[in-house]
Amino acid sequence: MTDTPIPNRRRFLIGAGGALVAAPALANSGASPGNPANQPPKVPEWSQFLGDGVAVRAYGKPSEHEAHVIRRDVQWLTASRESSVSFTPIHALDGSITPNGLCFERHHAGIAEVDPVDHRLMIHGLVDKPLIFTMEDLMRLPRVNVPYFCECAANSGMEWRGAQLNGAQFTHGMVHCVMYTGTPLRLLLEMAGLKPNAEWLLLEGADAAAMTRSVPMQKALDDVLIAWRMNGEMLRPENGYPVRAVIPGWEANMWVKWLRRIAVGDRPWYHREETSKYTDLMADGNARKFTFVMDAKSVITSPSPQAPINHAGGFTVLSGLAWSGRGRIAGVDVSLDGGRNWQHARLDGPVWDKALTRFYFEFDWDGRPLLLQSRATDETGYVQPTKDALRAVRGENSIYHQNGIQTWHVAPSGEVENVEVS
Amino acid sequence: MTDTPIPNRRRFLIGAGGALVAAPALANSGASPGNPANQPPKVPEWSQFLGDGVAVRAYGKPSEHEAHVIRRDVQWLTASRESSVSFTPIHALDGSITPNGLCFERHHAGIAEVDPVDHRLMIHGLVDKPLIFTMEDLMRLPRVNVPYFCECAANSGMEWRGAQLNGAQFTHGMVHCVMYTGTPLRLLLEMAGLKPNAEWLLLEGADAAAMTRSVPMQKALDDVLIAWRMNGEMLRPENGYPVRAVIPGWEANMWVKWLRRIAVGDRPWYHREETSKYTDLMADGNARKFTFVMDAKSVITSPSPQAPINHAGGFTVLSGLAWSGRGRIAGVDVSLDGGRNWQHARLDGPVWDKALTRFYFEFDWDGRPLLLQSRATDETGYVQPTKDALRAVRGENSIYHQNGIQTWHVAPSGEVENVEVS
Repeated sequence: MTDTPIPNRRRFLIGAGGALVAAPALANSGASPGNPANQPPKVPEWSQFLGDGVAVRAYGKPSEHEAHVIRRDVQWLTASRESSVSFTPIHALDGSITPNGLCFERHHAGIAEVDPVDHRLMIHGLVDKPLIFTMEDLMRLPRVNVPYFCECAANSGMEWRGAQLNGAQFTHGMVHCVMYTGTPLRLLLEMAGLKPNAEWLLLEGADAAAMTRSVPMQKALDDVLIAWRMNGEMLRPENGYPVRAVIPGWEANMWVKWLRRIAVGDRPWYHREETSKYTDLMADGNARKFTFVMDAKSVITSPSPQAPINHAGGFTVLSGLAWSGRGRIAGVDVSLDGGRNWQHARLDGPVWDKALTRFYFEFDWDGRPLLLQSRATDETGYVQPTKDALRAVRGENSIYHQNGIQTWHVAPSGEVENVEVS
Repeated sequence: MTDTPIPNRRRFLIGAGGALVAAPALANSGASPGNPANQPPKVPEWSQFLGDGVAVRAYGKPSEHEAHVIRRDVQWLTASRESSVSFTPIHALDGSITPNGLCFERHHAGIAEVDPVDHRLMIHGLVDKPLIFTMEDLMRLPRVNVPYFCECAANSGMEWRGAQLNGAQFTHGMVHCVMYTGTPLRLLLEMAGLKPNAEWLLLEGADAAAMTRSVPMQKALDDVLIAWRMNGEMLRPENGYPVRAVIPGWEANMWVKWLRRIAVGDRPWYHREETSKYTDLMADGNARKFTFVMDAKSVITSPSPQAPINHAGGFTVLSGLAWSGRGRIAGVDVSLDGGRNWQHARLDGPVWDKALTRFYFEFDWDGRPLLLQSRATDETGYVQPTKDALRAVRGENSIYHQNGIQTWHVAPSGEVENVEVS
């Protein structure tokens, strides 16, 4: 289940003349798919015999022909797999909902195996009435269903120093999007009763890392959910079963899993994960703190290094994902020539607030090399920047919040590679 | 994986006085969940040890504590499990997206295990240019992502003759709702070129039943999809991998799975599944044919027989699903007294066209018996009828298209039973 992509530092230079070496155009071998029917297909084996009956697979799983569509980790990236990440295979998915079995994982002490009967959530600190909830207590409360993207702050973080990992799964796969079911945190805080000086919360997980993060009260009272379901069923163990925080649009490290405690205070706690980690070290040695929002971002998922073009030219669908922690995606532009010329992509399916949005760009490929890029704009008018524009402001010490424009080089063979342009 | 609910023919009579025997109201044992914190919880085992690392579960699955949330069949309902049904556990889900592993199954010759490399889809008949598509050909085409409900025409069919099966999973679980990815059938037909007299299609599956259904051209050119994905990943084998028809709002038998052939003709084929089956036998011996649309319907999923109330009274959330094959759900009303008084439910989450819509009704339960009902209205103004109103028009010979109002009896103990009121 481990894959070790080879670092890749090729950099494509696009001069004023915009000259890319153009390979000879391949013959367009039938632009429209579908071939004339000369003879009807043979009757295959699966049409001749009874298959498995119902409920033999009481909980279903994918076809064995899809065994390559899995979460993968990169062993050289972290010292142990208990404190590591596995990536969503975004190159092999479509639409804007992630199936639960493929949502990326990021653990700090492995997957806590929580018994929901014994699990408790405590709210204490600057409240009138400290409360302890069982799961039954929580699941009796009013609830809402909302789809949100969840993105690790470190998603695409390797790319700060140039094209590193050869695959959208590895460069951008620390993101997923499911429909959450949960109760507004505001409701729990109202039940406990906030003291006048209650300004911050500490969320604590029940894993062996006892993950903790400080959350400002304004966000907590706005749209934070205490969620127990994803895509209709109970949370998966690796995603926080039986209950987690959902902090819409903000970095996933704050979405504390296996949530067991909410402390109410008057200032942030400055724990490990908001000081030595999840801050942004600038070129001058200062660190930006509390950079919670995940800004607008996009990536072309196909074609991409793990999803090459497997036809010799002609009609081609380019597919990708866009999202913004500040609201809805307003539009996505696509470039085939490394950012010199841009065209509007087609947004498809629901365009939700703070959720993954699918885009497509359909074109006739002449078989020449391409430098593919996508650029998202959100409803606030924020435009996804180039990596170089980010580096000019933030230097190259950063790990987190790398939302620069990604470039894929497509060879005449259809093979795709992660590259940089400047 | 098999469950055999006991048939239940209790019928509750509500006279003009509306007298239900009222049990003594139970003491309201703490209307608001959450108990005062006397002492912090003990540190549980899962907080003391490292759990599994990332990608140990490269394709994830639910917690072992959720092992009861599975598809179930009813063995006495059909002669063999290869031609049978398993039901979505709607009583144990929430929101409006069904996880792929729990989507109901209905097979006529078991699950066809199709190799996508060898699979072909042929279009022939009254076309200018017969075509054969490989999966690669299909997956090169422009595509859309749309959530739709899929409901078997026989869903709730046992209820024609009174309350039969004790569980929402069994009475209403032949429905699911996922986001499909596919190409409009219209596009394929345009590529083949329709002859002037092309009025009907025959869709044929690659299973050993060679399932066939006739589809009118007007629908085919409207919103039918040739789909290869559900909730982002490739279709599951039991749901038609690698390609199926999606016929929005129409009975699921027409959504041919493992789709291998589309014949274009000038009239319907009148095959087995649209004559001896999937027609509606009326009281006078005539049969209604081509009753394709699934009319507006709803069901309370919790409380329900498999999801009893497990508190002694106080704040209670009633949760349910509504859907219509004619468009969006406009509203849902809920009755606590068998249809005498109605109150508006709260629609929650996305209200999509021809998709499941979640509704909630929050109330303070006084611990007395309840007769719970829900009644959906769709955007055309159609109102879900009572079972008796349906029977007055259609007689009691029918199997299919039973969309009458469902009643659950809640006892003071919180136990729930499938009953009829009249």
